[in-house]
Amino acid sequence: MTYRYPHSLNELIRYLAKLPGVGPKSAQRLAFFLLNAPEEDALGLADAIVAAKRRLRHCSICGNFTDEDICSICADERRDPALICVVEQVRDIAAMERAGCFDGQYHVLGGAISPLDGVGPEQLKLESLFVRLQGGAVREVVLATNPTVEGEATALYLAKKIRPLGVTVSRIAHGLPVGGDLEYADEATLSLALAGRKEI
Amino acid sequence: MTYRYPHSLNELIRYLAKLPGVGPKSAQRLAFFLLNAPEEDALGLADAIVAAKRRLRHCSICGNFTDEDICSICADERRDPALICVVEQVRDIAAMERAGCFDGQYHVLGGAISPLDGVGPEQLKLESLFVRLQGGAVREVVLATNPTVEGEATALYLAKKIRPLGVTVSRIAHGLPVGGDLEYADEATLSLALAGRKEI
Repeated sequence: MTYRYPHSLNELIRYLAKLPGVGPKSAQRLAFFLLNAPEEDALGLADAIVAAKRRLRHCSICGNFTDEDICSICADERRDPALICVVEQVRDIAAMERAGCFDGQYHVLGGAISPLDGVGPEQLKLESLFVRLQGGAVREVVLATNPTVEGEATALYLAKKIRPLGVTVSRIAHGLPVGGDLEYADEATLSLALAGRKEI
Repeated sequence: MTYRYPHSLNELIRYLAKLPGVGPKSAQRLAFFLLNAPEEDALGLADAIVAAKRRLRHCSICGNFTDEDICSICADERRDPALICVVEQVRDIAAMERAGCFDGQYHVLGGAISPLDGVGPEQLKLESLFVRLQGGAVREVVLATNPTVEGEATALYLAKKIRPLGVTVSRIAHGLPVGGDLEYADEATLSLALAGRKEI
């Protein structure tokens, strides 16, 4: 007498439960929501997932997400190519841009050095960063990794590697709450942090 | 200098934000998770949504979700067709089945009478219920609407309508925490509630 959901409903619940922060109960809730939602919303979500997976790629210069070959920031001629802000994740770019006080370009590392998680410098996108620095056109690199142990370690590592190239290296100020996450910082704090950056 | 995500990323975030309990920030998180997830997981979710929307329909007898014309419960000959358990939502069937103490069939109302939300008896799937009762083959109807004001009102309304047909009408006992939700009840409580049902 054990009852099972129809196969297609079971599959939907199984995939939804893989999302972060979604347990079996929430997955069931989301599945029923999608089934009761208008066709347009449910199939629209499916299409959006497929389109994003197919179209989005990493900018060949900075690593940001883009629908084109080069992201809108790297392609923007009004932005200063001599100033590069290094961040851990793509989503950190959006946080910096919301603060609206940085007019240079970015470089996405794809993470931070974390020996406990087995992430060393070789797992980060450093090669493409040093290619950009070797041209001699870059004046300053702003290290905007998270103010966590891993982010600090990454910043120190990068500073040591970049300084010999004759490029100014700075670190955003600890206006950010220590142990926090760049993505959740408010605009004012991020502005202060950027304004108060110091050469290291 | 306002930065916008690439179009396909924006679209994905917009659709994810329509999910219940998902705000703009969580939608962004989920979007980045899907973009970083293996192709199989992300596209698998998209396929599962499409498949569920295309294949799942309501059982033509009881209103449960099914991939076929008739759901696996209505099609199960070992279940007693003379005993019908009336529930508000499809997901309530799974809750009852987990309790594993009911061997009759179900009927899904699709909601409960709620004048404040503009839901009257005419918005519920009552016609198909009375068609089932008019055959004379049904011995008892168990009203398992939620133990809320709306669920109680619906139960009272149904009892008044069904009794004249010569069918026994019962209500699951208030072993359920009042004001709660059938979907979240534990198996033991649901078993007690079913065992302690009383004719009304």
